[in-house]
Amino acid sequence: MEQLDLSYIILVAILAGLGCAGLLTRDILRRDQGNEKMKEIAAAIQQGARAFLRRQYKTIALIAAVLAVVFAAALGYEKGLDFGLHTALAFALGATFSALSGFIGMQISIRSNVRSAAGSLKSFNDALVTALRGGAVSGLSIVSMSLAGIAILFYGYGGGSATTSTNMDLVVLELVGFGFGASLVALFAQLGGGIYTKAADVGADLVGKVEAGIPEDDPRNPAVIADLVGDNVGDCAGRGADLFESTAAENIGAMVLGVLLFPYFGFAGVIFPLVARGFGIIASIVGIFIVHAREDEAPMSALNRGYLVTTILAAILFGFAAWAMLQPGTVAGSPTADPNTWIFYWLCGIVGMIVAFLYVWITQYYTESRYRNVRGIAKASETGPATNIIEGFSVGLEATALPAVTVAIALLVAYWLGSVTNIPNGGLYGTAIATMGMLSTAAYILAMDTFGPIVDNGAGIAEMSGVSDAIRKNMDKLDAAGNTTKALTKGYAVGSAALAAFLLFNAFLTEAGVKSVDLAHPETFVGAFMGAALVFLFSAFAIRAVGHAAWSIIKDVRDQFKEHPGIMAGTEKPDYGRTVDICTRGALREMVVPGLLAVITPVAIGLIFKFVHITYVLNTTTGLLEPLKAGEPVGGTLMVGTIAGILMALVLNTGGGAWDNAKKYIEAGNLGGKGSPTHKAAVVGDTVGDPFKDTAGPSLHILVKLLSTITLVMAPLLL
Amino acid sequence: MEQLDLSYIILVAILAGLGCAGLLTRDILRRDQGNEKMKEIAAAIQQGARAFLRRQYKTIALIAAVLAVVFAAALGYEKGLDFGLHTALAFALGATFSALSGFIGMQISIRSNVRSAAGSLKSFNDALVTALRGGAVSGLSIVSMSLAGIAILFYGYGGGSATTSTNMDLVVLELVGFGFGASLVALFAQLGGGIYTKAADVGADLVGKVEAGIPEDDPRNPAVIADLVGDNVGDCAGRGADLFESTAAENIGAMVLGVLLFPYFGFAGVIFPLVARGFGIIASIVGIFIVHAREDEAPMSALNRGYLVTTILAAILFGFAAWAMLQPGTVAGSPTADPNTWIFYWLCGIVGMIVAFLYVWITQYYTESRYRNVRGIAKASETGPATNIIEGFSVGLEATALPAVTVAIALLVAYWLGSVTNIPNGGLYGTAIATMGMLSTAAYILAMDTFGPIVDNGAGIAEMSGVSDAIRKNMDKLDAAGNTTKALTKGYAVGSAALAAFLLFNAFLTEAGVKSVDLAHPETFVGAFMGAALVFLFSAFAIRAVGHAAWSIIKDVRDQFKEHPGIMAGTEKPDYGRTVDICTRGALREMVVPGLLAVITPVAIGLIFKFVHITYVLNTTTGLLEPLKAGEPVGGTLMVGTIAGILMALVLNTGGGAWDNAKKYIEAGNLGGKGSPTHKAAVVGDTVGDPFKDTAGPSLHILVKLLSTITLVMAPLLL
Repeated sequence: MEQLDLSYIILVAILAGLGCAGLLTRDILRRDQGNEKMKEIAAAIQQGARAFLRRQYKTIALIAAVLAVVFAAALGYEKGLDFGLHTALAFALGATFSALSGFIGMQISIRSNVRSAAGSLKSFNDALVTALRGGAVSGLSIVSMSLAGIAILFYGYGGGSATTSTNMDLVVLELVGFGFGASLVALFAQLGGGIYTKAADVGADLVGKVEAGIPEDDPRNPAVIADLVGDNVGDCAGRGADLFESTAAENIGAMVLGVLLFPYFGFAGVIFPLVARGFGIIASIVGIFIVHAREDEAPMSALNRGYLVTTILAAILFGFAAWAMLQPGTVAGSPTADPNTWIFYWLCGIVGMIVAFLYVWITQYYTESRYRNVRGIAKASETGPATNIIEGFSVGLEATALPAVTVAIALLVAYWLGSVTNIPNGGLYGTAIATMGMLSTAAYILAMDTFGPIVDNGAGIAEMSGVSDAIRKNMDKLDAAGNTTKALTKGYAVGSAALAAFLLFNAFLTEAGVKSVDLAHPETFVGAFMGAALVFLFSAFAIRAVGHAAWSIIKDVRDQFKEHPGIMAGTEKPDYGRTVDICTRGALREMVVPGLLAVITPVAIGLIFKFVHITYVLNTTTGLLEPLKAGEPVGGTLMVGTIAGILMALVLNTGGGAWDNAKKYIEAGNLGGKGSPTHKAAVVGDTVGDPFKDTAGPSLHILVKLLSTITLVMAPLLL
Repeated sequence: MEQLDLSYIILVAILAGLGCAGLLTRDILRRDQGNEKMKEIAAAIQQGARAFLRRQYKTIALIAAVLAVVFAAALGYEKGLDFGLHTALAFALGATFSALSGFIGMQISIRSNVRSAAGSLKSFNDALVTALRGGAVSGLSIVSMSLAGIAILFYGYGGGSATTSTNMDLVVLELVGFGFGASLVALFAQLGGGIYTKAADVGADLVGKVEAGIPEDDPRNPAVIADLVGDNVGDCAGRGADLFESTAAENIGAMVLGVLLFPYFGFAGVIFPLVARGFGIIASIVGIFIVHAREDEAPMSALNRGYLVTTILAAILFGFAAWAMLQPGTVAGSPTADPNTWIFYWLCGIVGMIVAFLYVWITQYYTESRYRNVRGIAKASETGPATNIIEGFSVGLEATALPAVTVAIALLVAYWLGSVTNIPNGGLYGTAIATMGMLSTAAYILAMDTFGPIVDNGAGIAEMSGVSDAIRKNMDKLDAAGNTTKALTKGYAVGSAALAAFLLFNAFLTEAGVKSVDLAHPETFVGAFMGAALVFLFSAFAIRAVGHAAWSIIKDVRDQFKEHPGIMAGTEKPDYGRTVDICTRGALREMVVPGLLAVITPVAIGLIFKFVHITYVLNTTTGLLEPLKAGEPVGGTLMVGTIAGILMALVLNTGGGAWDNAKKYIEAGNLGGKGSPTHKAAVVGDTVGDPFKDTAGPSLHILVKLLSTITLVMAPLLL
C-alpha cells in the first residue's frame, strides 16, 4: 500500500500535551492552599527552590555558552559557517528547553505540594489527585517540549523539503546540537540538584535525628526547609531534565538511523520516531485522565492501572503508525523488502514496551520489602551496620544481571526482527524502533515520577504544620507510594539508556564515518578502558560531593543551635534561609568538577588520537596503510563507558533503594522496629544509599547519554 | 649479530629457584619454635589449615576433572585425539602445580609463623628475617614451578624441534591448557580461601569484639584459631595460586604472540618470555638474600631496598637477553627490521618495570595514612559510620583513574616501541615484552606478600601465648609492615592483569581466527555487556558468600558461649576445631556458585553465538555473506569483562585497604583514638572492607585471567 503522511500527528500531540498541561495547571492553582502555617512553609520552600534554580542556571548558562562557542567555531571551521551556526543554535535551543523543562517541573511541584497537603485535610483522594495532576503537568510539558524542539529545528532547517538522503543527513546532523545542549544542561541540573537534595537530607538527618535527637521534618531543625527544597530541585528539576534529554537524544539518534533507510522509506522513515512519540503523548494523556483512585484503594494500584492503559493504547497506536508509514518502496539494485515490514517493526516497538514493563518489575523485585532482597538487608542489620552495608551492596551488584540480560535479549530480538525485513541496515533501525516503543510511555512515567517529590513535600508540610495523626498517616501512605514510583522511574530511565545505547553508538559511527570499533587496536582498547574508568571516577566525585556539601550544612546547623539556644527550646525560629543558601553554594561548587570531567574526557580522547597515531590500518579502497581514525577510540570510550555507566547506575540506584526500604521495613515494626539497634544499623545503610540513588546513580544515566550526544556533535571533527 | 641460544638459562633459573627455596626451608625448620604454649597454638593452626586445604582440593579436583574431560572431548572431537589429550594433560599439570604452589606456600607459612614469633623473643631482626625467608620460599618455588611446568610441556610436546611457525603454533596452543588448569584452581583456591579467611575474621570480630567485648586474638574466642587459619589459606595459598597462574597465563600468551614473529626471530622469539622469566628469578634471589634489616630500621625500608636491587638487576639482565635473542633475521617479501630492534624491546621491558613501580606507589598513595585519602576517611568517621562508608567507597572509586591511565599510556608506548622495529605484529609483541618486564620481579614481590600473613599469624601467636608488651609491640610493627606489603602485592597483581589484558586478548584472537572484535555488531555488544555484568554479579556472590559463612560462625560461637559458660570465665577451653570445621564447610559451599558462574558464562556466550546467527558479514575472500564468528562476541566478553574486572578489583582492594588503615590511624591515637565513637565508626568501614579486599577483589584478578585462559582453550572450538 501507499504510505500515509502522519506528520501532522506531531503538531497535534504537541498542542494536546501542552494544552492538557495548561488545563491541569489551572485546575491545580484553583485548589485550596490550606492554613496559614502551610502557606508560610510552602513560601519558604518556593523561595529556596527558586533561589537555587536561578543561581544554578546562571552557572550552567556560563558553561554552556563557552562550550557553544567552542563547538560552533570548531564545526564551522571544519564544515562551513552555516553548519556551525545551525549546530550552535540547536545547542542553545536544547539547553534552553531543557532548563525550561526543569523550571516548569519545579514551579508546578512547589505549588502542588502545599495544595496536596491542604487536600489531605479534605479527603485522601483529593491529596492523591492533586499530586498526580501536578506530576502530569511536568510529564506532559517536558515530553511535548522535547518533541516540539526537534520538530521546530527539523522543519526550520529544511528537513520537510529534503529530497536526497545526503540533504536529509545534513539536516539531522544539525539537530544533534539540540541533544547535546539538552544533555549538558541535564547533567549539571541533575548533579547540582542531586548534590543539593542529598547534602540537605544527609546533613539534616545527621545533625537532627542523630545529634540533637529530634524527629525528621521537625521545624526546629534549621536544615528542614533545605531538605524540602531539595526534593524539588533534585527529583523534579533533575529528573525532568533527564527524561527531556533522553527523549531528545534517542529521537535524534533514531532519525540518524532513519536516514540510512531513506531509499526505502523516504521522509517517513526519518519522521517516524517523532510520530511514534506523538502517539505516545496522546496515549499518556488518556492514561493520566483515567486515573481516579477509589476511596479505599492503594495509591500504587490506581497508578499501575493508568500505566497499563497507556501501554496498551500506545501499542495500538504504534501499530497504526507503523502500518501507515513503514511501507517500503523498491530500490533498484538493492534487495526487495518484505511486504510485512511494518509488522516486524511494530513487533520491535512492542519488544521495547515489554522491556519497560520488565524493568519496572525487576526494580520492584530488588527494592521492595515484599521480596527476599530487602528482607535480607533488614535481617543483616541485626548484626550491625557493617553486615547491613555488605548485604545491601551485594544486592546492588546482583541487581545488574537481570536488567543486562533483558536488554541483551531485547536488542538481539529487535535487531533480528529488523533484519528479517531484508532491508539493508534494517536491523539497526529495528533497535531504534524498540527504543521508541519503550519511550512511548515516557510522559506517563514522568507524571508518576514527579508525583513522588510532590507528596514527599506535601507530607513534610503536613508534618511541620501540625496536622492530626490520621491525616499525617494518609500523607505517609502517599509518600511511600511516591518512593516506589521514584524508584521505578529510575529503573525505566536506566533501561531506556541501555536499550538506546546501541542505537546511539551506531548513529555516532554513521556520522563519524567509522565502519568498525575494533577492540584489537590498542587505541580503541585504551579508549574503551578510559570510558569505563570515567564512570568510576565520575561516581567517586559525585558521591564525595554530597559528603562535602553535607559537611557545611552540619556545621551551619551546629552553629545555629549554639548561637541561638532558643531554637531547640522552641522559643526562637531557626534561620532556614541561611542553611538553604549554604547548601546552594555548596552544591553548585561541587557539581562543576564531575560535570566538566564528563565533557572533557571524550573530547580529550578524540583530540589525542586525532594527532597521535600508533596503529596503521589498510584502506581497502586505496590499498594504502593509513592511521587509525580517531572515531574508533572515541567509539570505544562511548560504548564501554555506556556499558559501565549503566551497570554502575543499576548498582547505585538499586542498592540505595533497597537500603531505604529495608529501613522502612524495620520501621514498620519488623525485627525490633523503630529505635532498636537493628533499626540504627539500617539507618546507616539508608544514609549511605542516599548519594548513591539520588545523586550519582541518576547522574550516570545522563552521563551515558551525554557521551552519546557529545560524540555525535564531535563526529564531523573526527572524520 | 647472530642470535645466542640462552634457553639453558631457563633450567639454571628453575634449579636456582628451587635450590634456594630448599636451602631457606632448611634454615627455617632449624629455628626455634618457642615455648610450649606457642607450639600448641601453632599446632592448632596447622591442623586447621591442613584440614581446610585437604577438603578444598578434593572439591576442586572434582570440578577440574569434569571440566578436563569435557574440554578434552570437545577439543579432541574438533582437532583430533592427540590435541585433546595434550591439552587435557597440560590442564592436569597446570591444575596440579597450582595446587602444589598453594600447598607449599601454606606449609612453609604455618611453620614460619611460630618461628617468627619465637624469634621475636630473641631479637626484632630475627623475627623479620624468619618471616621474610618463609615468604621467599613461597615466592621462589611458585615462580620456579610455573616456569618449570611450561618448559616441561613445551619441550615435551616438541617445541624445541619445531621448525615451522605452524608446528610451533600447535605446540604453544597445547600449552594453553596449562594456563587454564592453573587459573581454574587459582580461582577456587582464592575464592574458597578468601571466603574462609574473611568469614572467620568478620565472625570472630563481630561476636568477640562487639558482642562479648573481648580483645582481638583473645584465646577465649572459639573463632580465634579459625581466624589465624584463614590468613594461611586465604592470603598464602590463595595469592600463591593467583601469581602462579598470572605468570603462567602471561608467559603462554606472550609465546602465542612470539609465534607470530617466527619468521624474524625463529625459536628465540617464542622462548624469550621464558628466558626473561628465568633472569627475573635470578634477580629476585639476589634481592631476597640482600635484605638484612639494620637494628633500628623500619621493616618496609629494608624490604624496599631489596625490591630496588631486584628491579635494577632484572633490567640489566633483561637488556642482555634482548640483545642476545631478539636479533631479527631478514624475511623475503617482508619489511626489513630495524637493526636496533633489541633496544626497542628492552625499552618495552623497562616500561613494564616502571608500571610495576607506579602501581606500588599509587597503591600506597590511596591506602596509607600518610596521605590525604585515608585521613579523609578517618575524618569522615567523626560523623558516624555512614559518612565513613561514603568517603571510603569514593576513595575506592577514585583509585581506579591513575592506574587506568598508567596502563593505557604504558600499553600505547610499548605498542609504539614494538611497531618502530618495522616487524609485522611487532607492536603486539612489544606489549607482551612489557608484561614480561613487569612480571620479572614477581618472585620478590611474592616473597614480600607472603611475609604479610606470616607476621600476622606470628603476632597472633605471640598475643595468645601471653608474651611481654615490648615483644608484642615489635610483632605489631611487623604486622603493620605486612599489611602494607599485602596491599602492594594486590596492586601489583591488578597492574599485571591490566597490562597483560591486551596481549592475552590478542592471543585469543590469533587462535580463534578472529580478525576484529567490532562493537558495532549486536552480538559483540551483547557479549561485551555480558562480560561486564559477569564481573558485577560475581562480585555480588563473592561478597555475599562471606556474609553467609560469617553468619554460621557467629551462630556457633554464640552457642559455645551459651553451652559452656566456663569459656568466658577462662576456666574452660573453647572447641576451636568445631568452629574451624564449620568455617571450612561454609567457605567451600559458598565458593561453588561464583566459581562456576565465571567458568560457565564465557562458554555459554560462545555456544549460543556458535548456533544463533543474527549478523552476517562479508567475507572479503569469498565475496559471500557469512554468519558472524562466535569468537567475536566471546572476544567482547573477554575484553570488556577484563576492563570491568580490573576497575572493580581496584575499587574493592583500594577501598578495603583504605578503610583498614583509617581504622589503624585512629587506633594510633588520632581523632579520639581507640574506643571513641569515631573509632567505632571506622571499625564498621574496616569490616565492610574485609570481604572487598580479601575475597572479591583478589578473586576478580583471577576471574580476569580465567576469562583469558578459558577463551584461549575454547578458541579452536569457535573457528
